[in-house]
Amino acid sequence: MTDDCLFCQIIAGTVDATIVLEEEHVVGFLDVRPVFKGHVLLVPREHLVTLADLPERLMVPLFGAAQRVGNAITSGLGAQGTFVAMNNVVSQSVAHLHVHVVPRTKGDGLRGFFWPRTKYVEGEAEEYAAKIRAALSH
Amino acid sequence: MTDDCLFCQIIAGTVDATIVLEEEHVVGFLDVRPVFKGHVLLVPREHLVTLADLPERLMVPLFGAAQRVGNAITSGLGAQGTFVAMNNVVSQSVAHLHVHVVPRTKGDGLRGFFWPRTKYVEGEAEEYAAKIRAALSH
Repeated sequence: MTDDCLFCQIIAGTVDATIVLEEEHVVGFLDVRPVFKGHVLLVPREHLVTLADLPERLMVPLFGAAQRVGNAITSGLGAQGTFVAMNNVVSQSVAHLHVHVVPRTKGDGLRGFFWPRTKYVEGEAEEYAAKIRAALSH
Repeated sequence: MTDDCLFCQIIAGTVDATIVLEEEHVVGFLDVRPVFKGHVLLVPREHLVTLADLPERLMVPLFGAAQRVGNAITSGLGAQGTFVAMNNVVSQSVAHLHVHVVPRTKGDGLRGFFWPRTKYVEGEAEEYAAKIRAALSH
């Protein structure tokens, strides 16, 4: 735990949150500014900053919790689907790894502006892929 | 494999894609319509539809691959962070589980419209949480 981390304080119970899940390694609570109501944040109890920091031993606890909460959101709130996402560094408002689990419903209006898309010009995709492959092989 | 699944066909090599990663359980390739260039899709070789279908034994292969590709995107493309996300059912364009790994850079313009937010009125957060908790306990 780090003293100045909001999510560590929620996990420790020194800052209030609307808790929905408390497991050995993971805590879940409502995002106070939800994309849609019922939007849950899942955090490892251990203070880890981004997905890159997550040890293998916590992957099943964390993503298993994302499955459990996703199923609860569809069955309990009547959502048709879920959006499960992590912002790492950029757009990450709290520097403690958190998995967003957001209820989705067809026609909820999110699609159009949610996934703005661009295009590769001729040969450009291969250039990007080559850089990623090279970095993977290091 | 299902014959009419685009991602199964990419995995089988019968449909072309710009592959960046081939592991025992996971294949990664460039999204042809990237949010930002270098946007990778990671898919389990096994045909699974949503995160809810992912067995525990594939969690470390899949999210470990997301870590590896995320690190490669930051080191290889000079991104500052990553956005890692799954659309389950709603906004899911291909019905084969895929993890988006998107390079992010501060000031890339995505933040404002990426996370539209709403608010809970008094008492409403607790109502939503109660429904999620009840569904979790079933």
